[in-house]
Amino acid sequence: MAHIQLLNDQLPGIVGLLDYRKETGQPLSALAEILLRGESTLTSGEREMIASYVSYKNDCHFCHSSHGAAAAAHLNKDANFIDDIKLGFVKTQVSPKLRTLLNIAAHVQQGGKKVTEADIAAARSEGATDREIHDTVLIAAAFCMYNRYVDGLGTWAPPNNEAYMPMGEKLAKQGYMSF
Amino acid sequence: MAHIQLLNDQLPGIVGLLDYRKETGQPLSALAEILLRGESTLTSGEREMIASYVSYKNDCHFCHSSHGAAAAAHLNKDANFIDDIKLGFVKTQVSPKLRTLLNIAAHVQQGGKKVTEADIAAARSEGATDREIHDTVLIAAAFCMYNRYVDGLGTWAPPNNEAYMPMGEKLAKQGYMSF
Repeated sequence: MAHIQLLNDQLPGIVGLLDYRKETGQPLSALAEILLRGESTLTSGEREMIASYVSYKNDCHFCHSSHGAAAAAHLNKDANFIDDIKLGFVKTQVSPKLRTLLNIAAHVQQGGKKVTEADIAAARSEGATDREIHDTVLIAAAFCMYNRYVDGLGTWAPPNNEAYMPMGEKLAKQGYMSF
Repeated sequence: MAHIQLLNDQLPGIVGLLDYRKETGQPLSALAEILLRGESTLTSGEREMIASYVSYKNDCHFCHSSHGAAAAAHLNKDANFIDDIKLGFVKTQVSPKLRTLLNIAAHVQQGGKKVTEADIAAARSEGATDREIHDTVLIAAAFCMYNRYVDGLGTWAPPNNEAYMPMGEKLAKQGYMSF
């Protein structure tokens, strides 16, 4: 049960929290919309992979599964894709550039100062731009917030991958301002 | 030197990043404004203390110092107050309720699932409301984002407490939408 009074059984994970305080929900949703679906040279599928990967590393089941499902929707994958994220994308084709960005994101998850000059140089050598590096760091940092918000208030979330697939489809098609 | 091209020597810490991508800067600033200066039964001084305390635990010098200076401005303290945050407020009067909220914030900093039923019960026994618990968790979570954003991109920040006092005064009086 969540630590505070929420409509969490009808509105799982962060959805109940965005509803609980709409004033904070608005910038939280706007940030996700810009980072994951706004103009970028990274595809939304790639950005959702970064979001889900960081959420898995933060042990946040709701965010890992829902953003994994959103990535799956963008990339035409089935629910098994969500499990491949846990393994660091062994079955998924990942470009060398995205591998270097996932490495930066994993270091951001551990702490801002864990990102090294070598991490940045590796990304640049695969053609990553300043904006791509910036957005990767901010996506990873933002999910360190969303994940802690969702679990710090003890919210409930469905256990199985399949339950997230319609939500992922909705996030991919309609975005983050529709919740 | 920052990992990407910023006007960081003129715009230290997060300020250069908010300027670098204004589209993400807007919701980031709006969230800080609502959480730290919006309507609440916690004072802005108390909320800035939570923000600065979490930032110190994340080893983010810029956020620890700037929000420590903002708290100092709200509470009429001098620059030494910023150092007392490092010690967990040994020289500062902290209400029993705020102590329990700082404990929740410290657990959020470690990870969302580190917040226990006992942490929540302790806060409730000191009179903390659902909204105060919600806002404490979200402030702590948000600073786990801001801190990683600032350090993950290797931004520069002034070393000494005194340099932050005018910034803290400006944040306390004019808020977060003026940057």
